[in-house]
Amino acid sequence: MTRAPVADLAPGNHGLEGPVAHYLARVLRLRAGSAFVAFDPARGLEADAHVVSVEGDVVTVQIGPLRAGKTPSERPLTWIQGFAKADKCDAVVRDATELGATRIVVAATKRSVVKLDEARGAARANRWSRIAREAARQCGRSEAPRVDPPTTWHEALAQIDAATARFCLDENAHLPLAPHLFEALARSAPLAFACGPEGGLDEAEVAAARSAGWTVASLGPLTLRTETVAAAVLGAVRIWSP
Amino acid sequence: MTRAPVADLAPGNHGLEGPVAHYLARVLRLRAGSAFVAFDPARGLEADAHVVSVEGDVVTVQIGPLRAGKTPSERPLTWIQGFAKADKCDAVVRDATELGATRIVVAATKRSVVKLDEARGAARANRWSRIAREAARQCGRSEAPRVDPPTTWHEALAQIDAATARFCLDENAHLPLAPHLFEALARSAPLAFACGPEGGLDEAEVAAARSAGWTVASLGPLTLRTETVAAAVLGAVRIWSP
Repeated sequence: MTRAPVADLAPGNHGLEGPVAHYLARVLRLRAGSAFVAFDPARGLEADAHVVSVEGDVVTVQIGPLRAGKTPSERPLTWIQGFAKADKCDAVVRDATELGATRIVVAATKRSVVKLDEARGAARANRWSRIAREAARQCGRSEAPRVDPPTTWHEALAQIDAATARFCLDENAHLPLAPHLFEALARSAPLAFACGPEGGLDEAEVAAARSAGWTVASLGPLTLRTETVAAAVLGAVRIWSP
Repeated sequence: MTRAPVADLAPGNHGLEGPVAHYLARVLRLRAGSAFVAFDPARGLEADAHVVSVEGDVVTVQIGPLRAGKTPSERPLTWIQGFAKADKCDAVVRDATELGATRIVVAATKRSVVKLDEARGAARANRWSRIAREAARQCGRSEAPRVDPPTTWHEALAQIDAATARFCLDENAHLPLAPHLFEALARSAPLAFACGPEGGLDEAEVAAARSAGWTVASLGPLTLRTETVAAAVLGAVRIWSP
């Protein structure tokens, strides 16, 4: 079901104007009779709603009874992070938790500098789970994301089903992320992103993602640090579909 | 001028389908005859373009001669950061530089824990300028953002003109950021954001922003660390309008 943010949500008929009306009518393409879920991000409330009419710049909507809203974490949102050195993965786990990830997977890639055997991998996963629980508590999330034991890049990709909108972020990609991500957000699809370590992904890893059905997309010409990619992408997801 | 990302940009007539076509026709509301600037974020190229026709799910566009694109930093993008303790401001400067800010202002607020006199303020500004130059070099930006000497919250707000789309981020706000930011991005407006320190803004500071014409908006019910807010918001801006 399409979800749209409506400030100061209250039951009854309301004529909406300005950016919210544009968002409903033009971006989400709702028409008279279209049903959607209106949510009030500031108060954590939502309601079933439908569009009564679209007339010029005014969208009249009928809002049903209010109920407690879903938390941002309820839509499946997986972040696969190429294993990066030092405390970069700690920062990614913290940011991804604040920004609504429900599952975090650290994956060994060809350019991951540190190698993890099973025992060290388990110890790291425990550490990242602790960081995720602490970050969830601090930001007010009721549940922390699940942190999987470290695995391989190929295995991590294979674990995400085809019903999920899957994006592999690669600075050499030609395809811009925005239109494809927007389409996935508009239909409230489960989301998964995969991002390489600080050295990036090698060609075989990108090819593996592509042949497994992932959309390989770029964030633009500038080179981001790997720990910035998570915050930027999950920030965009958070802001455009809280 | 409206800007739209088109992968593998090449001169001539092209029938676009899928998410890109949806983005042009539905999100940006382009019609037959609409002029726009098509840019290829992966190659840093752009071209004048116009829509030839919109038929069903196919948008046919005519792309003119290619030229070197604007860098992401050319649209004015100001980040005003409430002065936060420890190395949080360093992190904000680094993230904001990578994500395309053109100007960074650190502002003293009521809940800023550390106070800066003029000498210490100048020393900090030098440090942040150095960090911005280094981050610009690492991410491939030709110019680093300007880092202003620290100032007061009110002065920082007053320095941004009314032609700029101005957003004050406040976790207690009712208004969701997305529709308003989207509208500003669609018309390629200069942007400015203001964000409090780790303790947030006090009511008088939010009221000052509102009465100065800033849109006071929230990122949702979860409490973000102040250094995450910059990466999340500027990430959304970067992704939705590279």
